[in-house]
Amino acid sequence: MSELRFDPFKGRWVNVSPHRAARPLHLVGDRDSCPFCPGNEHDTPPEVLAIRPPDGPADGPGWTLRVVPNRFPALTPAAHDVRRSMGVFAMMAGVGHHEVLIETPDHEADLDDLPAAQMARVLRVLWRLVGEHERAPETAYVLAFRNWGRAAGASVAHPHTQILALPVVPAAIAREVTNSVAYLRRTGRPLAEDMLREEIADGARRVAENDRFVVLVPFAAAFPFEMALYPRQPAARFAELTEAEVSPLGELLQDVLRRMKRVLNGPAYNIVLHTAPNPIAPATAALADPDEIEAAFHWHLEIVPRPERTDGFEWATGLYVCTLAPEEAARQLRENSPP
Amino acid sequence: MSELRFDPFKGRWVNVSPHRAARPLHLVGDRDSCPFCPGNEHDTPPEVLAIRPPDGPADGPGWTLRVVPNRFPALTPAAHDVRRSMGVFAMMAGVGHHEVLIETPDHEADLDDLPAAQMARVLRVLWRLVGEHERAPETAYVLAFRNWGRAAGASVAHPHTQILALPVVPAAIAREVTNSVAYLRRTGRPLAEDMLREEIADGARRVAENDRFVVLVPFAAAFPFEMALYPRQPAARFAELTEAEVSPLGELLQDVLRRMKRVLNGPAYNIVLHTAPNPIAPATAALADPDEIEAAFHWHLEIVPRPERTDGFEWATGLYVCTLAPEEAARQLRENSPP
Repeated sequence: MSELRFDPFKGRWVNVSPHRAARPLHLVGDRDSCPFCPGNEHDTPPEVLAIRPPDGPADGPGWTLRVVPNRFPALTPAAHDVRRSMGVFAMMAGVGHHEVLIETPDHEADLDDLPAAQMARVLRVLWRLVGEHERAPETAYVLAFRNWGRAAGASVAHPHTQILALPVVPAAIAREVTNSVAYLRRTGRPLAEDMLREEIADGARRVAENDRFVVLVPFAAAFPFEMALYPRQPAARFAELTEAEVSPLGELLQDVLRRMKRVLNGPAYNIVLHTAPNPIAPATAALADPDEIEAAFHWHLEIVPRPERTDGFEWATGLYVCTLAPEEAARQLRENSPP
Repeated sequence: MSELRFDPFKGRWVNVSPHRAARPLHLVGDRDSCPFCPGNEHDTPPEVLAIRPPDGPADGPGWTLRVVPNRFPALTPAAHDVRRSMGVFAMMAGVGHHEVLIETPDHEADLDDLPAAQMARVLRVLWRLVGEHERAPETAYVLAFRNWGRAAGASVAHPHTQILALPVVPAAIAREVTNSVAYLRRTGRPLAEDMLREEIADGARRVAENDRFVVLVPFAAAFPFEMALYPRQPAARFAELTEAEVSPLGELLQDVLRRMKRVLNGPAYNIVLHTAPNPIAPATAALADPDEIEAAFHWHLEIVPRPERTDGFEWATGLYVCTLAPEEAARQLRENSPP
């Protein structure tokens, strides 16, 4: 069982999961021992959901997509999650869910290698998982992210997305929410809408777009070639994604991943979903009025290639030094469209 | 000239310094071309300060400690720093100072290899630099940090500390300040004092101590073997360090670095000074009443070995997963005292 501990200085929860230190590496060439490869289904806990032919047995091969509990979970289901104070500190049990969405049976395919139909399946399953976790008021936030490459934190090379149903709102998300709510109160408008209107009019930081989505290099990007993907039709939560948006989202995401790979020659990278906290969770109401959050916040994806150089003090201070102008990064990404 | 850009979603300034991409690597074996080695003084800008025999000429060999402007500065001095708004965004010129404190002529010595007298000299010079920068009201924050090892962000192997005099308060420092001020308002007491009293009484997370300083593994440490060094006699700013504290600080810092190296076999690591923002800077008053900050905040050092594994989503969400219990880290560090 893991723990969540609150740091009163930094105002953030930390997950303490000693058992995760024991998780093995499964690298690119390592197909036989890969727990996510077809034929090795017994190496994962029993599946939560899978797409396979109607006559295929659960936890056997033949699937095209599979969702399983993480074998080294940062959070586990439990009957209760009592928060305890210990003097200036607070802690609670690490109660929640930690799932893995195995995106394809193909050990070495990345998201942009998938056929469009499979990419759409991945998004529909992610949409469903996020929505289902948001039915539980004890889930404050559904965190979905994807680590690609060792340098980006992936311990299993086989392509997958991780989903954490958390009893707390991660600090960086909470800040984006409260900053967006403050802007709405001040101006009467959502920050992301104003930002998108300005960015579309300016154009210098636009990377790619289609009828439904826009990809930008953020004005104050912390890392070279960092990108943000926003829906044109704003919505607070990813669970509000419509069926008409699924294919355009998949297409644009694949397009910008290909651009990034051309410019950076296949970097390690992270994709992180930023969505509004669960509106029915008490933890969300403690942050701001859930109706205000729905009006103020817009879901988006952050796509961040791992820089070759990192300045170690940056995470400690929150002062990032970016060695490439966002406009220059956007120009290179725009000009390197996939063939 | 670099820029500072404000991210209204994340509530933080980012430094955009494209020229820093060009800075060369100077690795451990690389003595001849090392810009910080004796004999290569012409490879740095003219020195700001140096400790050398009275008859030694500036910018020549013979020194035991040298401070020079960074050749690839994240900030540069300029006559003015106009903040401009651009719609939802804001930016300003990257005005400030970026200095390097070359801690020893010895290319391969780390801080804990220095004789005690040299360690004390390093601290006295750092104390003086921080204090001098705080005489300028345009300096909101003096950031001092030390990257050791490539993985921790060091691009020059020769031991050195960097000092940034910034026109803004870094986001993570601003949060610690506002959280500490909120605690003071709520309880009438400084958060760090309450925390230290509890930690000393409990003992489970104590690593080492002397009459003047205590080193702990933080209750909600984000990284295995992370440590925090606090003065027993609280003070908001590092510039308030007293002469009687200099040697005890050097001794304890060297002691815990040696413990960390025994446990982790010489890891890459960062040391970051957390001090209160400059009380005479208008940017500080915008954060909280400077007198309240002086009463609420305590300077300390964060000492963080770079983990071999990083989960890429952590920096993006502020939700850190620590794979070692802080009490276990403290136990190992306590038991591995240097011979």
